[in-house]
Amino acid sequence: MPQTARSVQQVSRPSGRPTGAEFRFVDGPVPAPGPGTALVENVLLSVDPYMRENMDGDWALAAPLEGRSIGRVTASRTHGLTEGDLVFHRQGWRTHAVVRPEEVRVLPQAPGVPAEAYLGILGGTGLTAYVALTRIARIEPGETVYVSAAAGGVGSAAGQLARLMGAGRVVGSAGSPAKVRFLVEELGFDAAFDHREGRLAEQLAKAAPEGIDVYIDNVGGEHLEAAIGAMREYGRIAWCGAIAQYDASEPPPAPRNLFDLVGKSIRLEGFLVRNHRDAQEELERLLLPALAAGTVIDRHTVTEGFDGVVDAFLGMLDGRNTGKATVRVVAS
Amino acid sequence: MPQTARSVQQVSRPSGRPTGAEFRFVDGPVPAPGPGTALVENVLLSVDPYMRENMDGDWALAAPLEGRSIGRVTASRTHGLTEGDLVFHRQGWRTHAVVRPEEVRVLPQAPGVPAEAYLGILGGTGLTAYVALTRIARIEPGETVYVSAAAGGVGSAAGQLARLMGAGRVVGSAGSPAKVRFLVEELGFDAAFDHREGRLAEQLAKAAPEGIDVYIDNVGGEHLEAAIGAMREYGRIAWCGAIAQYDASEPPPAPRNLFDLVGKSIRLEGFLVRNHRDAQEELERLLLPALAAGTVIDRHTVTEGFDGVVDAFLGMLDGRNTGKATVRVVAS
Repeated sequence: MPQTARSVQQVSRPSGRPTGAEFRFVDGPVPAPGPGTALVENVLLSVDPYMRENMDGDWALAAPLEGRSIGRVTASRTHGLTEGDLVFHRQGWRTHAVVRPEEVRVLPQAPGVPAEAYLGILGGTGLTAYVALTRIARIEPGETVYVSAAAGGVGSAAGQLARLMGAGRVVGSAGSPAKVRFLVEELGFDAAFDHREGRLAEQLAKAAPEGIDVYIDNVGGEHLEAAIGAMREYGRIAWCGAIAQYDASEPPPAPRNLFDLVGKSIRLEGFLVRNHRDAQEELERLLLPALAAGTVIDRHTVTEGFDGVVDAFLGMLDGRNTGKATVRVVAS
Repeated sequence: MPQTARSVQQVSRPSGRPTGAEFRFVDGPVPAPGPGTALVENVLLSVDPYMRENMDGDWALAAPLEGRSIGRVTASRTHGLTEGDLVFHRQGWRTHAVVRPEEVRVLPQAPGVPAEAYLGILGGTGLTAYVALTRIARIEPGETVYVSAAAGGVGSAAGQLARLMGAGRVVGSAGSPAKVRFLVEELGFDAAFDHREGRLAEQLAKAAPEGIDVYIDNVGGEHLEAAIGAMREYGRIAWCGAIAQYDASEPPPAPRNLFDLVGKSIRLEGFLVRNHRDAQEELERLLLPALAAGTVIDRHTVTEGFDGVVDAFLGMLDGRNTGKATVRVVAS
């Protein structure tokens, strides 16, 4: 165990794309847990698209940052936690955290399910995809589902979950030929395309020639417009984020065909996963057997070492990850 | 009964705002009903915003036009219809129509409910408002509802229906001081404003200081943007039309704050009333007693005489009507 605790703080607001200069590393002594708390040594950290939005104001400057994390209890002064417990909590961007039992979840140890899955397909990322498909889009068996940023954390979960739920056709777009292969060959997408390779609307029409019923939108902007164009009557769009526009200082052009929502009776619905934590159990019921059987995979792009956390975050914003972007703080 | 039948046909597509030159009047002999049909003399015709969209392509040129109408059977060669029956049908924009029984609805004669209500609050106009509030926005008692174009047919129905359904606060915008008074003094809106009198977002914030839960959108464009800005978490927007953009040759600027749908968990849903005809009975169950008791009113702006039908249509597009725009072909 290192004698120093490191953490990252945000020190300035970005204008446009973050460069990394908005962050600083802070060293200090390893904190000592007070009565009723435990000391956790973080093992895995999550970096996520929503954090880019937090940088614009939700995150206080020069203060500890929030982030989903998995750590191991190394000292406990509470009955609720035992040394050696592997816990999920929200004190990310740091090597050590002092937690109260009600702030953490002790992770179950299911065979064939690595801990990192609780930051990925079993975590907020998978839950976002699950809620998008079920509560928001209300997917029906046999429907055609389109997922943008499909090789990312939420996207790769959404495509696989749609397949598990009986979608008739699952189509994805991603930003490189390698990612397109990953979607089709490893995740079982029926079709996928590289959105940098041609006009989005044309590529989508080719991948889903009979149109789409459900769109899981992580991107916004041009992707949302293409999806509205390809939608069949009574289509539903679950809008979880808009990575395409987080860096924009001007609001991006909204879809020019937005009025097609009326003519095609389309529903466009936004949501925040934090309002749907009660779906976690359903998600695990569905996924634990599939993960153990290997019919669903939980791919991570892991950055090794705490000092890489800012780079991992910037790389995720640039789409350099395949699957969930995760940082391994110490070997678990 | 006149010896000549008159009708209106569309002869060219408009570019931008229609001028009336897109239409022509056609005279011919009064048609004779064949076996299994009846001759109807039209009494009332409906002119509606959706017709502006039909002009761009759905309506064939130099052909009879579609439109909701009420007429009286003057000769029948079918058992299903009797001379003197007052019927609702869809052969509008003409003085006479030959109908089959399955194409018409014989109107009930309820005390205190004039026939014209079946083109207004009991017709497609009222049904649009009803479906918007119930099936699309799923209004809950106590909620705040905002209605744009609130003095128009759909809008005046939506505001009154929202009140009947227990809305906590009903707010409307319209395009003149007289209409604003009509909303508050005659229709019972809690607040109303003239959208030409100042910045929309500011006026809406003043009329609904605690925000809105439901928006019934007939207008699109700037009104949709203001409504998204004023929405509370979990707000719903029922989108029935976008009169503001029918004349535009460019797609209008979509709302710049569209991404707020994610942060506020807002649902934006379009629909076409023709997919919800099965709600008609519910609507009548709710409205017939209220109309008879006078707690709901069905205001029409009536243009007298068939020859005024094109002017009535253009005037409706300009917002010159208060309540439903209707044409009286002959005194009933």
